Amino acid sequence: MAEPVPTGPCVLLSGGIGGAKLALGLDRLLPRGALTVIANTGDDFRHLGLDISPDLDTLMYTLAGLVNPHTGWGLREESWQFMAALGELGGETWFQLGDRDLATHVERTRRLAAGESLAAITQAFCARLGVTSRLLPMSDARVATRVATDAGLLDFQDYFVRQRAEPVVRGLHYDGAASAPVLPEALAALADPGLTAILIAPSNPWLSIAPLLAMPALRAALAAARAPVVAISPIVGGAAIKGPTAKIMRELGLEVHNAVLARHDQGLIDGLILDRVDAPDVAAIEALGVRAATTATVMRTLEDRIALAAFALRFATTLH
Amino acid sequence: MAEPVPTGPCVLLSGGIGGAKLALGLDRLLPRGALTVIANTGDDFRHLGLDISPDLDTLMYTLAGLVNPHTGWGLREESWQFMAALGELGGETWFQLGDRDLATHVERTRRLAAGESLAAITQAFCARLGVTSRLLPMSDARVATRVATDAGLLDFQDYFVRQRAEPVVRGLHYDGAASAPVLPEALAALADPGLTAILIAPSNPWLSIAPLLAMPALRAALAAARAPVVAISPIVGGAAIKGPTAKIMRELGLEVHNAVLARHDQGLIDGLILDRVDAPDVAAIEALGVRAATTATVMRTLEDRIALAAFALRFATTLH
Repeated sequence: MAEPVPTGPCVLLSGGIGGAKLALGLDRLLPRGALTVIANTGDDFRHLGLDISPDLDTLMYTLAGLVNPHTGWGLREESWQFMAALGELGGETWFQLGDRDLATHVERTRRLAAGESLAAITQAFCARLGVTSRLLPMSDARVATRVATDAGLLDFQDYFVRQRAEPVVRGLHYDGAASAPVLPEALAALADPGLTAILIAPSNPWLSIAPLLAMPALRAALAAARAPVVAISPIVGGAAIKGPTAKIMRELGLEVHNAVLARHDQGLIDGLILDRVDAPDVAAIEALGVRAATTATVMRTLEDRIALAAFALRFATTLH
Repeated sequence: MAEPVPTGPCVLLSGGIGGAKLALGLDRLLPRGALTVIANTGDDFRHLGLDISPDLDTLMYTLAGLVNPHTGWGLREESWQFMAALGELGGETWFQLGDRDLATHVERTRRLAAGESLAAITQAFCARLGVTSRLLPMSDARVATRVATDAGLLDFQDYFVRQRAEPVVRGLHYDGAASAPVLPEALAALADPGLTAILIAPSNPWLSIAPLLAMPALRAALAAARAPVVAISPIVGGAAIKGPTAKIMRELGLEVHNAVLARHDQGLIDGLILDRVDAPDVAAIEALGVRAATTATVMRTLEDRIALAAFALRFATTLH
């Protein structure tokens, strides 16, 4: 495709690590301020008395160019003196908090307690760190993903980090999602008549994207938007690029297949981008009324991120 | 004096840096567990959402052999990544919190919020850090030193750290001291019939010791104790060894003189230890009914700390 990349405004719904890669590609590709990222906050939790927003922070650090390139989360050149000392005092060390990262949590906790909104605090942090794309939490209200497993109903981070996503998933709950208000800025961005696309990042569909889509106002805004809604699949060749997506799908009794994702989001998405290795799936997906396109979706380098961002935007314009 | 050093139990009332030096001397001199330190908590404050107990921590780190020898507070080999990142986010950086030190505050804050007492948390931390002397906060209840100055009524750390003790002091308040319960363990230690001495550390009399003595139950316990009460003066040659003691005395209209300290504590202390340079003050102090003795009171080395501890205990036995 040699057409120019559309440079109008774009909205990305995103979780953490995988979504942040695409967010970075869009951020570097588009003019300053054209990108709005609406971030999952279903992973947010209170730990050690601190308010922690893992996906927001991963997106913020990634867009600021500060993320640890080896892990995809946390800060590059981080130190771990706090965690070491906490362990010596007998504190809980299963959730890793680096010394510099800790400043984000301490300052966010302080400002939340002082009555500032999560959105306002995120905006202030982004301004300090030089992030020019707009990063919005999906809500200022609390939404908590909880995982029903064979080991009981677990808080998200207990399941995901402490128990390394090992328990067998029976179902997922997004507590508070039904009533959590979507930010007015997010609704305005989605309703923008000049919007090029609403993209859904290749984040974990059940853990990272589902909490967003569990908010009725956000679902309604996607349905009402004039811009096409395009998801990028995190399933490549019958496996997840990263993380427990495939494991969870199997545990939920679903086939690990892009057509399953397309059916899951049928009526909500206009298009689905697959990796080239999944070109054989295109017909099955298009039979569901979802347009499909293939490209290289595994993002290893910054160029990969920018190329996938450009592909997604070009593809979206064909769906207008 | 060549008499053996009494090795029975001893109680020290102490503030932070200066007091911690004597605490260390006593800790190293006495059998394990013989020393009980009752620490000023009037400096305690909530900062960045964290519950910070500066004097308790200085004592704990000192007794654990972990204190920064250059500053007398904080941890040795500390790193400052958290503070740097907090500054980048626009947070408040006037109160220095090292990366390892931060674990103490985060874990204490979490445990206080979970309903544990400050005394129990301090005991648990000391056990983890290998402190065998008993370190007690003066109360589990909140006592807050506030400083009336020409710049208004200031919270202690605002006056002491943020404004570097520069405002002119008009008066001091120990909010909550009149009603704060003294710990039963502290009262039991003070009433121990086998106690060698109750020592008052050469900490700032107005900022560090006065909050302790502002608690009626502690004052009463000193008056009722069979053990002699011996203070070590922080005034050497008409100046303070360290900190704003002399400045505050002048601002309060007091002469910077050991006799002024003796008169201030008349009826409460049985003895006052002065530096050798202040030998001419002995007569004036003894005229007030306070026994006085002189030795080297400036503690530069561990040997200085142990020597002063031994001197104080021997002097106390002469007052029984």
